[in-house]
Amino acid sequence: MALSDLEASQRNDGGIATAVGILKQRFGDQLQTNQSLLEQHSHTMTYIPSQLPDAVIFPNSTEEVQEIVRTCAEYKVPIIPFGTGTSLEGNVNAPAGGISIDMMRMNQVLKVNAEDLDVVLQPGVTRSELNVHLRDQGLFFPIDPGADASLGGMAATRASGTNAVRYGTMRDNVINLTVVMPDGSVVKTGGRARKSSAGYDLTRLMVGSEGTLGVITEMTLRLHGIPENISAGVCQFPTVEDACNTTILAMQSGLPMARIELLDSLMTQIINDYAGLDYAPQPTLFLEFHGTDAGVAEQLELFRDIAGEFGGSDIQWVSTVEDRNKLWQARHDAYHGMLAHRPGCQGIATDACVPISRLAECISETIADVEELDLICPIIGHVGDGNFHSTPLIMMDDPDEVARAEEMIERLNMRTIAMEGTCTGEHGIGQGKRRFLQLEHGTGVDVMAAIKRSIDPDNIMNPGKVVRLD
Amino acid sequence: MALSDLEASQRNDGGIATAVGILKQRFGDQLQTNQSLLEQHSHTMTYIPSQLPDAVIFPNSTEEVQEIVRTCAEYKVPIIPFGTGTSLEGNVNAPAGGISIDMMRMNQVLKVNAEDLDVVLQPGVTRSELNVHLRDQGLFFPIDPGADASLGGMAATRASGTNAVRYGTMRDNVINLTVVMPDGSVVKTGGRARKSSAGYDLTRLMVGSEGTLGVITEMTLRLHGIPENISAGVCQFPTVEDACNTTILAMQSGLPMARIELLDSLMTQIINDYAGLDYAPQPTLFLEFHGTDAGVAEQLELFRDIAGEFGGSDIQWVSTVEDRNKLWQARHDAYHGMLAHRPGCQGIATDACVPISRLAECISETIADVEELDLICPIIGHVGDGNFHSTPLIMMDDPDEVARAEEMIERLNMRTIAMEGTCTGEHGIGQGKRRFLQLEHGTGVDVMAAIKRSIDPDNIMNPGKVVRLD
Repeated sequence: MALSDLEASQRNDGGIATAVGILKQRFGDQLQTNQSLLEQHSHTMTYIPSQLPDAVIFPNSTEEVQEIVRTCAEYKVPIIPFGTGTSLEGNVNAPAGGISIDMMRMNQVLKVNAEDLDVVLQPGVTRSELNVHLRDQGLFFPIDPGADASLGGMAATRASGTNAVRYGTMRDNVINLTVVMPDGSVVKTGGRARKSSAGYDLTRLMVGSEGTLGVITEMTLRLHGIPENISAGVCQFPTVEDACNTTILAMQSGLPMARIELLDSLMTQIINDYAGLDYAPQPTLFLEFHGTDAGVAEQLELFRDIAGEFGGSDIQWVSTVEDRNKLWQARHDAYHGMLAHRPGCQGIATDACVPISRLAECISETIADVEELDLICPIIGHVGDGNFHSTPLIMMDDPDEVARAEEMIERLNMRTIAMEGTCTGEHGIGQGKRRFLQLEHGTGVDVMAAIKRSIDPDNIMNPGKVVRLD
Repeated sequence: MALSDLEASQRNDGGIATAVGILKQRFGDQLQTNQSLLEQHSHTMTYIPSQLPDAVIFPNSTEEVQEIVRTCAEYKVPIIPFGTGTSLEGNVNAPAGGISIDMMRMNQVLKVNAEDLDVVLQPGVTRSELNVHLRDQGLFFPIDPGADASLGGMAATRASGTNAVRYGTMRDNVINLTVVMPDGSVVKTGGRARKSSAGYDLTRLMVGSEGTLGVITEMTLRLHGIPENISAGVCQFPTVEDACNTTILAMQSGLPMARIELLDSLMTQIINDYAGLDYAPQPTLFLEFHGTDAGVAEQLELFRDIAGEFGGSDIQWVSTVEDRNKLWQARHDAYHGMLAHRPGCQGIATDACVPISRLAECISETIADVEELDLICPIIGHVGDGNFHSTPLIMMDDPDEVARAEEMIERLNMRTIAMEGTCTGEHGIGQGKRRFLQLEHGTGVDVMAAIKRSIDPDNIMNPGKVVRLD
């Protein structure tokens, strides 16, 4: 796990001191350097050791971000855009120091265009703040990573979550971004039309670039109407393979599942314990169906038939809105539940995503590895997308256990890539997955590096993440 | 329309002669230089004058494309990827000469992964060839520009068509591309997983890059199950505004329209004449609904209610598969119908796409311009996407008429951009829309140019298209 190597040697101490001085004079209390704040801005939900920035700055506008970026550009000082700090792969670490730009004061919903099903907002709005804002208008924003992340961070990481199987990921739901580029210029990547063939797709280039190409300061997102009927339930299975095969057949049948989340036996038990639920400790699918009343009834009937072929239980309906919220909150809290399950452990997130036809095989082989390597490793996943997280719960002071976890993760990622899948369906590359990015994309990484160099020749935007330029 | 300016002065005659000689020796009859073939490879469905390449070459494999590109790179010779030549903005012209790579011999469907709803194929397969290939498997590929274009060309142009309102555009339906880069290296942009957060989105960067960043030699596309129920029909309205408002309300209501195509009175009459149909010559929507039997019934009921509010006629159902195919073929042949309507004219395609809330206003103001400027200009469009084509039919030897058409197009594109839309929903920039790209994207075009320079520093890939580097 020695992934915190690089760039410390490349610290530009003189430039950093100068830029921090200039920005302090200009921005006063908006710039802070106290130790606990620095720690907070490098501590993320990750096994990768923290690397602190030299200062944290809190801009209020695109213009302020421009000023900050121009100063940093002049003195070649790293800039690390920061939202809620819930990324999992060291994405907000500061390996060569520099300035963390905390975007959370830019948290205004600027305009809901209900008639166009879009919203214009600042990047510090979180997904649940947006949904609270929208509720009265019969609209919602579906993308829901486990954490209540900032929408800017979600765009930067190309995040998804439980609804992606039906509504797509941030790739599909970001319409337009305003970005401050590494030279301080401002780019709007698109308009508000539903489609465009006007030049290179800068929106999609910025989505998933993890702050390495610019700082997102405004965004337009696609919204969806709240369906007439939302029905959630739980279906349990004899084996993980049965639950996978049910998922595969449901997807292949074109069932428009809104959510279909797998939990293995251990994960079901962990969620029971953490959230006060009482499902049988066996492989489980958490389900949600969206549509008209008649449409949902049709979907249910088809799903029941499929689940029945694989020994699925009767569906246990979650009838009230409160119980439904409780179910999905429990799902979103899975990571915290895992940490509570083995006090003192570190959960090492994995993020395999494979073609749906390979899902059962990929999970089964991973379970065999977990048994062989004697690890504690619950599995939970967005299986309708072929995406699952098997998370070894590791005592980091036990080198043997760490080594066994590394072996398991290595096998998992290599298996995933061999199956034409990806090492990361939704978490991003950050520092932690750069080696696997290379194995997965090969010469494509050279193209990514060429793009990075062309847009950020001095490598000031979140250096050491996604692609390395050394 | 002096859009065929540039780059002729930049011809690299010596390099071209050398490269053509080397490639002729290596590839024999796969390389051709006869005049009619050169003309064929620059003649496209466009008002922009042809600019011929110096040779046309027909590769059979990715490896052959690599050899060709390496030779062209060595002698800095332009390469223009060519599919069916049905682009509309001079996208395959050769302003500085060079070699047209005709990809149509690479026309194999390599693998249908029915269980993953995807297909791996070569770029010379056309959309209708693919659908014939898939028919027995209950699957289809929805994207359908008017022409029976090659899928490689459709990816390069970020094409869409009548089904995009339900199934998305090429942006959404290309999973992975194999691309020969300007230095001859081969890049695979993705895997086959449904989603990925692994680095910059090279797939979406290549989709819509119009051959300016590399040559697509293999592709993986998303497929869809043929719905249980497909119902097509025609609904007619007192005014274009009524038809637009019906569309807007249908979309805002979340109706999952599969197709919703507007024809103004003139266009309805043109299609009647060209395809032997007999709809009343008034504003018309061609409709299609996809779903289960019950789902389609529900959609129809809701659509009828909405259309009724705006004076819509009873829906005239198209009951047999043959009649349905005839209806959509007539729609796809609209461009040819327009040319036949005014013999000797040139149709100047426009491609406005605006947020749906601005659609009625945008079309109404455009119609007022057409009347003021005394033009013949039928309108047809994918109005569910806010995308419509108003196509002045112009006698190019009448300078006054040409000037009035230019004025109308200028107003239309400026209006579209002012409404936060785009000058091109699906045709691409090519040579014809570079000025509007600049007006629409501003500093974003600098970023596009930086990317272009970083990937193709000698500007050999389809030079003079999308972004200019001079």
